[in-house]
Amino acid sequence: MTPVTDEIRVRRGHENASYDPDLLRQIIDAGYFAHIAFQHGGQPVCVPMMYWREEDFLYWHGSTKSRAMLAGAGDEVCITITHWDGLVFARSAFHHSANYRCVMLFGTAERVPEAHKPAHLHTLMERIAPGRDDDLRPMSAQERKGTALLRIPIDRVSAKVRSGPPRGDPADADWPVWEGVVPVAQTFQPAISAALTEADRETPDNIARLEGVSI
Amino acid sequence: MTPVTDEIRVRRGHENASYDPDLLRQIIDAGYFAHIAFQHGGQPVCVPMMYWREEDFLYWHGSTKSRAMLAGAGDEVCITITHWDGLVFARSAFHHSANYRCVMLFGTAERVPEAHKPAHLHTLMERIAPGRDDDLRPMSAQERKGTALLRIPIDRVSAKVRSGPPRGDPADADWPVWEGVVPVAQTFQPAISAALTEADRETPDNIARLEGVSI
Repeated sequence: MTPVTDEIRVRRGHENASYDPDLLRQIIDAGYFAHIAFQHGGQPVCVPMMYWREEDFLYWHGSTKSRAMLAGAGDEVCITITHWDGLVFARSAFHHSANYRCVMLFGTAERVPEAHKPAHLHTLMERIAPGRDDDLRPMSAQERKGTALLRIPIDRVSAKVRSGPPRGDPADADWPVWEGVVPVAQTFQPAISAALTEADRETPDNIARLEGVSI
Repeated sequence: MTPVTDEIRVRRGHENASYDPDLLRQIIDAGYFAHIAFQHGGQPVCVPMMYWREEDFLYWHGSTKSRAMLAGAGDEVCITITHWDGLVFARSAFHHSANYRCVMLFGTAERVPEAHKPAHLHTLMERIAPGRDDDLRPMSAQERKGTALLRIPIDRVSAKVRSGPPRGDPADADWPVWEGVVPVAQTFQPAISAALTEADRETPDNIARLEGVSI
């Protein structure tokens, strides 16, 4: 993976950008939700979406009518994946901060051909609930046509991470105020069945396994 | 509050956009973290940041060297606040979805004048830990100068919400697979003190109150 343009990189200053491929993949694979930015009708637009990684490509999908699909093939996009890990309290307002892991990916959106859609959508479902796709009512040709699937290569990308305690001015060390971190956790909760029949209500293992998993 | 451009609105299709001011404020005030999109050096950029609301303005700040401050006064931005509330499992892959509350704000970034900065930064700290700002080592003139503070009016904005169980095709009602929701929760965890001296280690009430609060 290669860095983003120098212009972006240089302006980042001392904010600890990283281009380590393992770190990048770890941050990407830890999440499900991202924000995608693109130009639309002359203005920047930022839309939430689900994503997944396969090898060195990042995929996203949606109804052909959804906002995330306003960015089409050939459009320049920036996809940002952020895990908020905590609020950081220092002895001066200036040194307050947030802990987070963030990956920014830049690329030109590519449309995935119709014939390849089923395999990629299968991978998404396998990621969330292994085995579930085989149990579902199969997708119709019309549904497949109504589902847009896009991707970008993961090659213009960088990570940024802040972790750990406050790092304030040593001159403030004796100032009498609490300093520390309030962590933030985002986790899956116990499943809620929507089934109307008694027989369907037991949560299957491939869903129940999500409970307590951090995002 | 008035809707965003028709172009964006129309393309949203049937995704339940709302312009209800109370709903918009609820979603904005429930969060701390957003993503801001803007054009930089010819490409879209999407950066995570903290934000807060005062009346009908949305504020964000950062070191003058930080990425969130690459968008300067006069730049068109889109700020998106998203709360992920769950994964939605239907009986067909096509009707799977996600529950979320999202607000998109469009506007031209305005720089807050130097003289007004302290009052707004005080409001941010009051929001996170009421009373804390008075206990901190006061901000120096140099620190204030190194902190950029921007805002947009909250007037081109819309909310989008999906909640509740899957809404699949009635024809699939008897398909024998579990359907339901796996909720997602994002909450503050118990504070971790960074203090080196025993006397400082007790978490003050204005920090301890965050524990268990949903974001």
